[in-house]
Amino acid sequence: MTETTENKDLVQEDVQAETTEEEVAQAEVQEEVELSIEEQYEAKLAELQAKLDDEENRHLRLRADFDNMRRRNQLDREAAEKYRAQNLLSDLLPVLDNFERALQVETTSEEAASIIKGIEMVYRSLIEATEKEGLQVIKAEGEPFDPNVHQAVMQEQDSEKETGVVLRELQKGYILKDRVLRPTMVSVNE
Amino acid sequence: MTETTENKDLVQEDVQAETTEEEVAQAEVQEEVELSIEEQYEAKLAELQAKLDDEENRHLRLRADFDNMRRRNQLDREAAEKYRAQNLLSDLLPVLDNFERALQVETTSEEAASIIKGIEMVYRSLIEATEKEGLQVIKAEGEPFDPNVHQAVMQEQDSEKETGVVLRELQKGYILKDRVLRPTMVSVNE
Repeated sequence: MTETTENKDLVQEDVQAETTEEEVAQAEVQEEVELSIEEQYEAKLAELQAKLDDEENRHLRLRADFDNMRRRNQLDREAAEKYRAQNLLSDLLPVLDNFERALQVETTSEEAASIIKGIEMVYRSLIEATEKEGLQVIKAEGEPFDPNVHQAVMQEQDSEKETGVVLRELQKGYILKDRVLRPTMVSVNE
Repeated sequence: MTETTENKDLVQEDVQAETTEEEVAQAEVQEEVELSIEEQYEAKLAELQAKLDDEENRHLRLRADFDNMRRRNQLDREAAEKYRAQNLLSDLLPVLDNFERALQVETTSEEAASIIKGIEMVYRSLIEATEKEGLQVIKAEGEPFDPNVHQAVMQEQDSEKETGVVLRELQKGYILKDRVLRPTMVSVNE
């Protein structure tokens, strides 16, 4: 072999070595690229999955809000329906008071008695209309005093009756279904 | 070379050939697998994206339903609130009729006149309570006949008044806010 040949061989060997290193590097890069494509996909998938989870949570919350609103509306509607006449009935209570007072006059003539009789029929039809909407007089006289529906404005003594019993009704009280519109003003036995 | 050696060589060649074919096939499979991993990822991504789109659409629809329900409830509540006293007021109309009739009696004694005066005050307070809830008497006499609020039950002739004008009110009519509870019964000029 000549020196040249020897050198060539050495160069050849070097080239050989370089090529091998290059190949190894390339393979590594290849692997890295392959990994990072997978990683990119996994990242995209994770991102989409997170969005999907968010969206599903958002949906569940909205669904819950929706159901709550529907339930609350139903209750509101029922309450509104149940007590719909409350304002008018409350305004009618003094009318009923005055009506009863006007009818309590003692009459001396037949004409006056006849008028009162006619007006009493009107009064009864008014009471019927209010009862139809759920208005009821609270029981008082002779009942045990009940702070939920009675308002004690004075105490009296009647030894023949039990302590804490309502002796007199001083002003009628009314409930609308289960709601007290006005408690009965009463005197209570000491 | 012996026959055996020759044969061995042949076999060797065959093995060589087989190996090459195998390698090619393997490379192809490798490529296929690589492609199908990408494809699998793309399919997964597409599937997730479709789910996400579905979920977003579902959310939008629910959101729209939610808003519609809220709007409808608001309108329902307003209508229920506006006409809340309608039933009671409708039941009070005959009471008002009878009340007015009872008050129209001619009185001959001072006692009777005084009773009527007291009852008239009750009547006015009843009317005030109904007006507060939105009840109003429909105008009739002298007005042009209006089929929306008037019910013609007879025709009369009055040459001094215009054709189609209400001559007499035979029964009072009432509206609750903008809703006719009972049209006025009238006679109309021919």
